[in-house]
Amino acid sequence: MKIKVTLSTLLVLLMAIGVNAQQALWGGAPIVSPEVNNDKTVTFRFMAPQADTVYITGDFLPTEKMKTPFGEFDGPGKALLTKGGDGVWSFTSAPLASDLYSYSFIVDGLKTTDPNNVYMIRDVASVTDVFIVGGGKADLYSVQDVPHGTVSRRWYNSPGNETTRRMTIYTPPGYEAGKTKYPVLYLLHGMGGDEEAWIALGRSSQILDNLIAQGKAEPMIVVMTNGNVAQQAAPGESPKGLYKPSMQLEHTMDGKFEETFKDVISFVEDNYRVKADKAHRAIAGLSMGGYHSLHISRYYPNTFDYVGLFSAAILPNDQVKSVVYENFDETLKKQMDNGYKLYWIGMGKTDFLYKSGVEYRAKLDEMGMKYTYVESEGGHTWTNWRDYLSEFVPQLFK
Amino acid sequence: MKIKVTLSTLLVLLMAIGVNAQQALWGGAPIVSPEVNNDKTVTFRFMAPQADTVYITGDFLPTEKMKTPFGEFDGPGKALLTKGGDGVWSFTSAPLASDLYSYSFIVDGLKTTDPNNVYMIRDVASVTDVFIVGGGKADLYSVQDVPHGTVSRRWYNSPGNETTRRMTIYTPPGYEAGKTKYPVLYLLHGMGGDEEAWIALGRSSQILDNLIAQGKAEPMIVVMTNGNVAQQAAPGESPKGLYKPSMQLEHTMDGKFEETFKDVISFVEDNYRVKADKAHRAIAGLSMGGYHSLHISRYYPNTFDYVGLFSAAILPNDQVKSVVYENFDETLKKQMDNGYKLYWIGMGKTDFLYKSGVEYRAKLDEMGMKYTYVESEGGHTWTNWRDYLSEFVPQLFK
Repeated sequence: MKIKVTLSTLLVLLMAIGVNAQQALWGGAPIVSPEVNNDKTVTFRFMAPQADTVYITGDFLPTEKMKTPFGEFDGPGKALLTKGGDGVWSFTSAPLASDLYSYSFIVDGLKTTDPNNVYMIRDVASVTDVFIVGGGKADLYSVQDVPHGTVSRRWYNSPGNETTRRMTIYTPPGYEAGKTKYPVLYLLHGMGGDEEAWIALGRSSQILDNLIAQGKAEPMIVVMTNGNVAQQAAPGESPKGLYKPSMQLEHTMDGKFEETFKDVISFVEDNYRVKADKAHRAIAGLSMGGYHSLHISRYYPNTFDYVGLFSAAILPNDQVKSVVYENFDETLKKQMDNGYKLYWIGMGKTDFLYKSGVEYRAKLDEMGMKYTYVESEGGHTWTNWRDYLSEFVPQLFK
Repeated sequence: MKIKVTLSTLLVLLMAIGVNAQQALWGGAPIVSPEVNNDKTVTFRFMAPQADTVYITGDFLPTEKMKTPFGEFDGPGKALLTKGGDGVWSFTSAPLASDLYSYSFIVDGLKTTDPNNVYMIRDVASVTDVFIVGGGKADLYSVQDVPHGTVSRRWYNSPGNETTRRMTIYTPPGYEAGKTKYPVLYLLHGMGGDEEAWIALGRSSQILDNLIAQGKAEPMIVVMTNGNVAQQAAPGESPKGLYKPSMQLEHTMDGKFEETFKDVISFVEDNYRVKADKAHRAIAGLSMGGYHSLHISRYYPNTFDYVGLFSAAILPNDQVKSVVYENFDETLKKQMDNGYKLYWIGMGKTDFLYKSGVEYRAKLDEMGMKYTYVESEGGHTWTNWRDYLSEFVPQLFK
């Protein structure tokens, strides 16, 4: 045989030719960005020889006051990069606390992703680059050399919504090979999110893998459903195609999701090896998902021994009519009387829902309904929700 | 209770406040891009009031000649957008054939993603926006209103590599609830790819869902492994963290993956309900994955009744020493003598591996080893690989 395509020529050719190989090379300058330095500072680099200004904006920078028609709020900070002789702009942050952060560049007024960072996460209708600073709590958000659970995207039938719907489901290490039955945590996203939110921004599979490996959490199944009943699945994952996502969805907080949540529980208990009783069911969610958790656990008042409200919205819109929201006080009292092991509330000090949380806790106090309350710094952020999950999960099923 | 956070104020607040809500709003101008029009033209829009030039580049544009030290090749084309009075640049393509396409903008010389398109796919070290033009073959690549299989990311033990490794596995609709045993297609990626390549750029789960629903393909399990034995998992999915991916990996075509492929088969056959015999095993791959499929099917010469070589590399580097590459001709003859149902070769007319394909087919002809050959337009592209998969899969296990 006279064929002479060797490994090295193959590599060169692959890199020189063709749209896809080209795509792989685009942005191929030898730039590393972001670079997490040993002292926990992070250096960002952006090649833009002709730009006049390059800023970086992200949640790792001190917030800046932002004026809106509704008052002044904390918005994301920004910092100017410095231009080097080689046309590469750079910026090094202050030492950062361990966390997962997101950022974008602003080049001559235009926001853009970092061409040297392939790690991006969609949050509702935006995609931003992310990075992790380890050596602290974010070690929980990182893939470690521990046994890994399985993450599946699976469709289930929801008779209550007359359609099939998609969920993300985490089964712990050893699930497939074993015979044990597992407890289940139902973990719900916020407004504009979907069944991808907790696994992507929430780093739920890494947190579970790591807490289980450390012996801090019981092995459990985590079910991440889509809480927008108008959607079958996350944007791009349904027959609606690759449409532009929006935060303004219909039927998100009108009782329908809560009412049809029994479809989710039935599916999971019929299809997975689970301990199908109250002592082995937990439900938690962030923001709208906290609202859903509150109402689901109250509407099915003898179903969950563990409830987690992370930066939760509390009350339905006055205009909303749903059997789910009738008899709020009575069903909540019923839930209390039926008993539970943990009613956990987490809230950030600057959260715009802070006040409604204060009022809700006053209501619970008045009723004598026990809860655990954790108040954190910051506001309505994924940083807090990852913290809350990391704190909540070790308390389950013990 | 005096709490007054209603649905509408909640929405407004969520959109006005906080880093994450801000992230959701960044790029929030009411711009739709890309917009697939009724006549199959596609309009792209980009807000850049101060830019001097905005180009679009992508695989939907006619290619342009590109000079390299190795000769002149076809590179991705580009087109200039037109600036509107509102600062929004736009470009409308010619009517496009049904396919999945990728693109980027180039603003004053800087390549950037489309802030109005959240659908992006990583190809090796680059992330580009994608869109789908339906009404033809790409309907296979789209999520349709049909039963959906489950897609799982699962870790398996590879004693041959002394580590655990990650795979993506598609189980067909009904797998979990049924008792039937299924045939298995092992589907391998190309250089720089990983266990995410076929599911993301290859749209394998959509293609399988749709072909099965149409009755054109047998229900089957599809196992998408990581062919880079130096990696445990795709970039960002292993303990190596969020590093910058590279096309230049070690140990990709040195026999180690082929040699340890028995670990993959053992894992699948021990852990899934499969028909564990030659008649129900297929192996196929693109480029390096075609090379792997060629060598694996020959090295285990009585294991697969179906082999697919998509734009395959053929010969190992002269310097590589591996038991896998010894006795090439003898093991190939043994594979032929053992018999098989389909040895399928697909190659694009302008593929840089075209010539080695010609030579390999001459070799097969000389041996009398039967194969099916499909020659397509174009070169070393995902368009072709999705086509090849769509054509290959209906021929399996019949």
